[in-house]
Amino acid sequence: MTQLQAALAGKITEEMKHVAEKEKVTPEFVMSQVAKGYIVIPKNINHDFKAVGIGKGLSTKINANIGTSEKHCDFEEEIYKLNTAVKYGAHSVMDLSTGGDLDAIRKNMIKHSPVMIGTVPIYSVLSKLQKEDKKIEHMTADMLFEEIENHSKMGVDFITVHCGITKHSLAFYEKDERLMGVVSRGGSVIKHWMKVHGEENPLYAQFDRLLDICLKYDVTLSLGDGLRPGAQADASDGGQIAELMVLGELVKRSRKAGVQVMVEGPGHVPLNQVIMNVELQKRICDNAPFYVLGPLVTDFAPGYDHIVGAIGGALAAAHGVDFLCYLTPAEHLCLPNEDDVKQGMMASAIAAHAADICKNIPGAIERDHIISKARRDFDWEVIYENSLDPELARKRKEESESKEDEYCTMCGKLCAVRSDRGEN
Amino acid sequence: MTQLQAALAGKITEEMKHVAEKEKVTPEFVMSQVAKGYIVIPKNINHDFKAVGIGKGLSTKINANIGTSEKHCDFEEEIYKLNTAVKYGAHSVMDLSTGGDLDAIRKNMIKHSPVMIGTVPIYSVLSKLQKEDKKIEHMTADMLFEEIENHSKMGVDFITVHCGITKHSLAFYEKDERLMGVVSRGGSVIKHWMKVHGEENPLYAQFDRLLDICLKYDVTLSLGDGLRPGAQADASDGGQIAELMVLGELVKRSRKAGVQVMVEGPGHVPLNQVIMNVELQKRICDNAPFYVLGPLVTDFAPGYDHIVGAIGGALAAAHGVDFLCYLTPAEHLCLPNEDDVKQGMMASAIAAHAADICKNIPGAIERDHIISKARRDFDWEVIYENSLDPELARKRKEESESKEDEYCTMCGKLCAVRSDRGEN
Repeated sequence: MTQLQAALAGKITEEMKHVAEKEKVTPEFVMSQVAKGYIVIPKNINHDFKAVGIGKGLSTKINANIGTSEKHCDFEEEIYKLNTAVKYGAHSVMDLSTGGDLDAIRKNMIKHSPVMIGTVPIYSVLSKLQKEDKKIEHMTADMLFEEIENHSKMGVDFITVHCGITKHSLAFYEKDERLMGVVSRGGSVIKHWMKVHGEENPLYAQFDRLLDICLKYDVTLSLGDGLRPGAQADASDGGQIAELMVLGELVKRSRKAGVQVMVEGPGHVPLNQVIMNVELQKRICDNAPFYVLGPLVTDFAPGYDHIVGAIGGALAAAHGVDFLCYLTPAEHLCLPNEDDVKQGMMASAIAAHAADICKNIPGAIERDHIISKARRDFDWEVIYENSLDPELARKRKEESESKEDEYCTMCGKLCAVRSDRGEN
Repeated sequence: MTQLQAALAGKITEEMKHVAEKEKVTPEFVMSQVAKGYIVIPKNINHDFKAVGIGKGLSTKINANIGTSEKHCDFEEEIYKLNTAVKYGAHSVMDLSTGGDLDAIRKNMIKHSPVMIGTVPIYSVLSKLQKEDKKIEHMTADMLFEEIENHSKMGVDFITVHCGITKHSLAFYEKDERLMGVVSRGGSVIKHWMKVHGEENPLYAQFDRLLDICLKYDVTLSLGDGLRPGAQADASDGGQIAELMVLGELVKRSRKAGVQVMVEGPGHVPLNQVIMNVELQKRICDNAPFYVLGPLVTDFAPGYDHIVGAIGGALAAAHGVDFLCYLTPAEHLCLPNEDDVKQGMMASAIAAHAADICKNIPGAIERDHIISKARRDFDWEVIYENSLDPELARKRKEESESKEDEYCTMCGKLCAVRSDRGEN
């Protein structure tokens, strides 16, 4: 029984109880939202960890993408990155490895991870083809579904599948002249395969086959946005919206089958299109949990895309996005290293928290109040303890000339808080 | 003649021409907006540099706060910080020094600065009092105005003056129970002085005296928000809004006198109150240029306040804020060092640019298009050249295993752009 099937049967699972406790809501609330599909609890029956909920009425969650590539492949480093992501608050980690023994890496990742694991099974197919010096067009539907079953059986909690690239959505895509084309790895592969074979996307044509696998292991579908914009110029265009409408249809089919489902979103989006994108997804996909990459509100800052994504992500989450995929300073330049993972997590955590204040999530603004009160009282220990990054906050203060002072070197004794008390 | 007086007389100054050229608008447009007070061109008659405009219809500008404190005072370091700020795009630098020989530091700063210089003259008064072991209450109105004249004569382009803390606004302030109290240095001093003496704020009571000084040197008034919130809890409260309404009144008096004026704004503000704050200021202050510090959309991230401020700043600027004061990673912890200045500038530049895309500023989104097109074509040199931080972007790519490759180590050969072309 999937979490969705249980909820529809009126059953409160251990996972729902755990989510409720963590989020300070009632188990009944969680169950009712899971039943509607507004909340998902991605947890494979073959993966043992503490379940997390994603969706309406819950705190904003964060995913960290890690994984090897053919050009940079170090098993141990990936485990360090996993641990760093978890240490700084990741609720899930996506293993996007494409280099090395992928099954071994994934197995190891699932074993070591105390959080949800997501994957993009088509990457494994591509990687195998590449090793055999074969082209994308040699991929078959069976290869794809076998790989999906392989990931699912292993214990992956959610999978990204690019089901929304169809003849229908590609027709809209072709009508717009995009600057960047398709920037989703899975998306570009599906599009090219369809073009060569003249056939419908097997992930769409055989969607029921996908649902059967997900049902068996309670794998949550993360409907990928293969036509997401990869440039400000391409945001919210025909292809993107046509694909979103296909995803809306698939959300309904998934729920009907008892399969948990969420929807992935853009991407590169100007700040004044962010709210519209969220509202549209929520309407078209009937409040399915929305999982976005960014949005990146400019293309001009490689090296700082964690900040660019935090700007878009904060606004998106404040308006209903449930799940943020972090971006690291390495985005668009190279595979992230361990420090990139930390910086990406910090920026996303800020975006998620700023949004949770707006969403009235229990405990969110209370944390700000604790720090603000401690600032008023010069209670540095309380400030550090409740800060996003206690180590860094302490380090900056204690390395300054005001290590021992209640005030800091910014204002010295001319501190406003002191003056306000008449101490100057 | 101030820029405002010139504009009202229908005269297009050299400064207006320069602003128009830089912003790709007509000199007539600049003149008409300066005449209305919607644009200011802060440029002291005693400071020689290329003038910059701030306000409606122009690109978003950025200020970098630098300066010594009693606890950390190094002349040379401040000049490095000035140069770093200018290198990374600061349109103005505020010298907030409170440690060392303030007149000498300021003189040096004005001499070396190719951009606008702003100051907060009351800091000099406080610093002098502190050196003489005197308390805030020993300040006199004459000391304050003499210092303002001293800064103005020296060539300061805009000054922050906390004129809006009045008996009226303090009455509203007292009615709300604030968590953090007053966090503006100037504001807390004025408030304390008024309380001890039982008198009206001299900057308000003798506002005409201030106008006379500004007129003489064409110093732009930056009406400080002494009651700005210093915590999420205190945002948009009675004190803040009552002060804003006083500032609205003073905007009208300044303009009538021919003095250029802008308005400073918060501060710590939850993301869902940012737009309201901007719209309210624009209405109450009749579109006076709005200069904000942040806004900081959470209090919980000391060490990362440049990111916190960039989130609030981007949204604020997209909705009409004209001038962003940067925040550095050092905020709330210590005086910023040179790298903090760089990081603060980068985050603010991203916020300003994301907003300029929304404001349809000529050349803004075009820069994104150039980079996006170069990404599609793997033209790394064009990407670097047009990036916010060309050195960093190049460094990350060239230090990776894909130094020589057209793709990067993120995806290796499985790059989506390659797949989209059928190259995989």
